[in-house]
Formats: sequence, C-alpha cells, structure tokens
Amino acid sequence: MHARAAVPQYVPGRSAEDVAAEYRLDRVIKLASNESPLGPSRLAREAVERAARELGRYPSDGGARLRRRLAGHLGVDAAEVLVTNGSTEAIRLLVEAFATPGCEAVVPAHTFIAYERACRLADVGVRSARMDGDTIDLSAMAAEVGANTRFVFLANPNNPTGTVVARAALRRFIAGLPPHVVVVLDEAYREFAGTEVEDGLNLRGLHPRVVLLRTFSKCYGLAALRVGYAIAPPALVSAMDQVRDPFNTNALGHAAAEAALEDEVFLRRVVRHNATARARLVAGLRALGLEPVPSHANFVLVPLGRPAAPVVEAMTRRGVIVRSAGMSGLPDAIRISVGLVEENDRAIEALDAALAEVMA
Amino acid sequence: MHARAAVPQYVPGRSAEDVAAEYRLDRVIKLASNESPLGPSRLAREAVERAARELGRYPSDGGARLRRRLAGHLGVDAAEVLVTNGSTEAIRLLVEAFATPGCEAVVPAHTFIAYERACRLADVGVRSARMDGDTIDLSAMAAEVGANTRFVFLANPNNPTGTVVARAALRRFIAGLPPHVVVVLDEAYREFAGTEVEDGLNLRGLHPRVVLLRTFSKCYGLAALRVGYAIAPPALVSAMDQVRDPFNTNALGHAAAEAALEDEVFLRRVVRHNATARARLVAGLRALGLEPVPSHANFVLVPLGRPAAPVVEAMTRRGVIVRSAGMSGLPDAIRISVGLVEENDRAIEALDAALAEVMA
Repeated sequence: MHARAAVPQYVPGRSAEDVAAEYRLDRVIKLASNESPLGPSRLAREAVERAARELGRYPSDGGARLRRRLAGHLGVDAAEVLVTNGSTEAIRLLVEAFATPGCEAVVPAHTFIAYERACRLADVGVRSARMDGDTIDLSAMAAEVGANTRFVFLANPNNPTGTVVARAALRRFIAGLPPHVVVVLDEAYREFAGTEVEDGLNLRGLHPRVVLLRTFSKCYGLAALRVGYAIAPPALVSAMDQVRDPFNTNALGHAAAEAALEDEVFLRRVVRHNATARARLVAGLRALGLEPVPSHANFVLVPLGRPAAPVVEAMTRRGVIVRSAGMSGLPDAIRISVGLVEENDRAIEALDAALAEVMA
Repeated sequence: MHARAAVPQYVPGRSAEDVAAEYRLDRVIKLASNESPLGPSRLAREAVERAARELGRYPSDGGARLRRRLAGHLGVDAAEVLVTNGSTEAIRLLVEAFATPGCEAVVPAHTFIAYERACRLADVGVRSARMDGDTIDLSAMAAEVGANTRFVFLANPNNPTGTVVARAALRRFIAGLPPHVVVVLDEAYREFAGTEVEDGLNLRGLHPRVVLLRTFSKCYGLAALRVGYAIAPPALVSAMDQVRDPFNTNALGHAAAEAALEDEVFLRRVVRHNATARARLVAGLRALGLEPVPSHANFVLVPLGRPAAPVVEAMTRRGVIVRSAGMSGLPDAIRISVGLVEENDRAIEALDAALAEVMA
C-alpha cells in the first residue's frame, strides 16, 4: 500500500458541460486545460473517420506504425520511441521502470504536478528546487542532485509558468548531471515556443539517460484521444515498454496522430494563432493592471496578489473556466489557456468582473 | 527495478495487416484476439462520429458520465464503478492499490497471463493452482489460500479454456475466502455464456472485497477504443481511482460505450451469432478428429497433442491467424476465436492443411 496521504491528487479542469449545467449557462468557455482552440488538422479528423470502421479490432500493440512514422519524422530510430497514453502515462512508466530503493527525484518548486504524483506513488522521494521567480533555476536544481538522485524533471516551457530556460544553461546543466540520473525533459509545449527553446533532440548527446516527453494533446489538438510519446535511448525505451499495459493506446489515436504529423501547414497555423491571440490576451490583462508572466506556451500565468480560488469561482459563475495554479504551489495565480480571440476577450471581461466582486 | 526475468511478457496476436505483408496474402483472417466479428452497434459508431467533432478537448477524467450510465445499467452506485483503459488497466490498478509487502496471489494454472504479469511487476508472489483438466478447480484454489494471500484471480468463463465454474461451487468458494483477500472475478466473456454462469453482481454480498472486471472489447465490439470497467465496493474503487493516471480513458471510448449500452437488441444478436457459429466451428473441428474443449465463450481451445507453434505458423502462412495457448502454459493447444461462419470454415481448412503439413 502506498502512503496515500503524501500523494498529491491531480484535479482536472471542470468540463464546460458540467459548469453549464450547474450554473444554468447557455455558453461556457473552457480555458483551463491548455487545449487547442483550433482542434486537430482535417487530415487527423478524416483518419479517425476511416479508423472508426474497425472499432471491433484491437489496436496495434504499442502503436507500431505510429512509432515508425514518429521515428521517421524525428530522424531517430523506432527503438528510441515509445507511444504512450498521453505523456502522463510516460511519466508513470519511467518512474516505475527506473526507480530504485531509496531513490529521489529533483523537481522544480512550481511545475506540473504529475511528476511529484508519479514519484510519490512509487515511493520515490521528491526534492523541490527553488525557482528564480517564475523561471526554473538550473543552479538550484543542480544543487539538489546527489548520490540518491535518480530522476530530474524539467518542463521546457514550464507549466504553469510558461517560462523557458536559456539554451546554453540547459546544455551545461544536462552535461553536468551524473550518469545515473534519468533526465526527463517534458516538451509538451515546445512547438509554441519556437526557436527560443532548445530542441530536446539536440540535447541527447550530452547525457546517456535523456528522456524527452511529447504529446499530441496540445498543438496537434488531439487531447480527446490520449496520445503522447517518449524519446529515449533504446535500452530505456525497452525498459519502459516492459512495464506498460498491453494495448495502452487506442487505434483511433494512432490513426489521428499519424495523419496529424503529415499536416505541417496546419501546425504552423496553430502556432501562429497562439502567438497572436496570446499577445492580445496579455495586453488585455495588462490593461486590467495585472502583470502576467511572459509566456512561451499556449497559456498565461497571472499572479493576482490574492487567493485565486474565489476569483476562479467567480469567473466560472460567469461562464469562463480557468485554473488556479494552487496545485503547483502558486495559490495566488490563475492560469488562462489561450483560446480563440473572442474567448480570450470574454475571459478578460469575466476576470475584470470577478476581481471587482472579490474586492468588493 | 523489478526482477524483470520473472515477469511473463504478454505477446499480442499479430495483425492481419502485418501477416498480409509478410506472406504476400490478399486476405488474412484474424481469429487470434477474441474480437467480435460483428463489430459494434450502429449506435456506438454514430456516437464515435459525433464525439470526433471535439478531438481537441480532454476526456471527462474518469469517464464520469459513462460511470453513471454503467451504474444505472447495472443497478449499482456510481461509486462502485471504475472506468478503465481496457480491463487490463483494471488488473494493474488493483494490484498496485492493494498489494502489501510479501503478499501473494492465487491464480489458476492455465488462465489469462495478465494476472501473473501484473503481480510480478508489483513484486507480488504468484501461487499457481492446479486445474481439473480444462476447468478451474476451486478446491485447489482454496487450498493455495493462506495468511499471505492478498489476491485470488478467477476468470469465468476462463481464458483460454472457455470453461466455467459451477454456480453453487463458486458461491461456496467466495463465501469461504478470508476477508483480507481481494477476490477478482474477470467476466470479460460473461455475456457469451448466458445463464449457465453466475452473474458476478449476485456474488458481491458473499465477501467484502469482490472486484468484478468487465469490458467493452468483446461482445460490444469496441476493442479499438480500450474501455473496460471494474465493479467493487466504494472504498476499493476509491483506492484504485487514486492510483490511476489522470485521463486514463479516451473520449471516443466513453461515447461509444455509453451508446453501446443502449443497444440490447444488437448485444443479443452478437451472442446468438456466437453460439451458432461456435457450434459449427466445433463440429468442423470434431470432423477433423480433434477434441475441442466445450466452450462458453467466443473462442474455442483445441488440444492438438503436439506443439502448437508450428501449426499456428503453418496456418498463418495460409492466411489464418490463431494463437497457441503457450502463454497460458498449454503449448500443445491452439485457441481459435469465433469469427464469421465463413471465416471459421476457412480456419478449419487451414488447420486441416497445417496439421497435414506438420505431420508429413
């Protein structure tokens, strides 16, 4: 039995449907889960329709064809790719595969809660590294690394702050880690950041145990289908593969992801839309007198200087769902996903009204 | 790190696509994974099409609406239902949630390999209970239960033998198990057996820790989408829920499963088709001089009296994929899924030719 009390629970964003029912609202805008407002490529939709003709058949175990397509797309060997049920599954698999008795993980103080949760469930100790404001402090991370350190988790861009680490500093940090450490670089939001973040593929030569995590849930707009993947040296992929459930990923997800990889024009459109809409969202937040953290992702963290929970509740009542960053240890900030321009404008209005309400 | 050598690997059935490519065959029949030859209900297909309009949105975490629908359908409370990524995930979750240091599981000698695999991965010892021929021997199971026993696994009908245990004996067995044991009753094939098997829902009052496992992959024809579920007392469901990955199941699977529950006419047609086609398959096998094990499921185990692997290979070359039961400790038997009548007829022809070849 696990020491359950120590395991932080992941609380997902509420669905638009639930909120609409509870508050009797006609329209609810969900900007809480960093979903893509443009959804997937038409190619992915069509691939799902075709694959839906064979619902009675088991998926290819391990998503063999998607794995080969990803390898070709990335310029790596298929043995270096593992297809997973969202990158959340990859996080659990790598902890289960590589944890050793008494080992520890080093995790930034304010980041995606899934790293700590997976570690606690596997009885892996967690050392929290202080951050430099909203940015991951690689020196502080390095200072926490010791003989018992088995994992280092690093999201770039980081969630929920949206910040990135400098390229040269990241290279030095990874190169300086002892070889027994599994270096987990979560690149879920990488595409939104463009060239200002180092591509993890370029970092693999710096250390023998670099694991990159990527997903089709964000820029590819396929969150419904749960497809992520890990890129790692073959021995590490093989170890993770051995602990995964058979048929861990579904056939429609495979088909959609394969097709999505083909549509680079659409991907560029998504990234462009995000940059434009994010700039307008940030300007609108500043016009309210707020100071959003400069973001390289498809969401914006907004420190409020007061508890976020009542503000989130007041926005929800107005039909706009956002998240408090409380799960990541920032209970005074909200995270707003970048939606359609009109959705973002409504979020700013709702936030304005919510702040007026809680300050009244 | 797990003691990998002791973990049996699950080797999935080969896909028709792979086999067609390797042997340059126009048509390949797959009767290897107990899939439904009739696929899903039209209602489920239509639900998938509708849900596919929202691929960019995360699923409801935990499949809240499906959980409620299942509860209503089964006449249990929603807190007694856990939606899982196939029943394979449920097997892992319950082992992870309830394993204690030094605990053991009692498993029939010839059954679904996933039970032993999940136990080994969690360092749970496995005691194999001898069977009464092809049938699970409940007395032998009971004799293996001791102070360290934490799990008892029982598939009814059993895979790969297709046999069931008698209703009264099953009731006595479960009622006699000590309260610290988690009693796992895997009912993946229950619908095919009809009234000759006890409905697990009627057994829950006999013991405080009965966990029923069910799936949409078999009679509901939704294997591609990975939806299974567990039915258990609320405290057990809650413990499994706490160790599962967020968003462990996908949105199209939820939609399809909800719709599939509505189409009882289709379900009856699937069960009727299976009974008719299975009877003809069995007659055909007997006409070859073979003695298939009387089956209550959607597959038939056929002891060959010689190693099955070369027979399976020779059938595969002829475009018919079946499985050796070697993973379940029966290397001299093949398991043939019940397909369409014409597919089963071709399987019998291929088996006849394959046997002639290996005996030549």
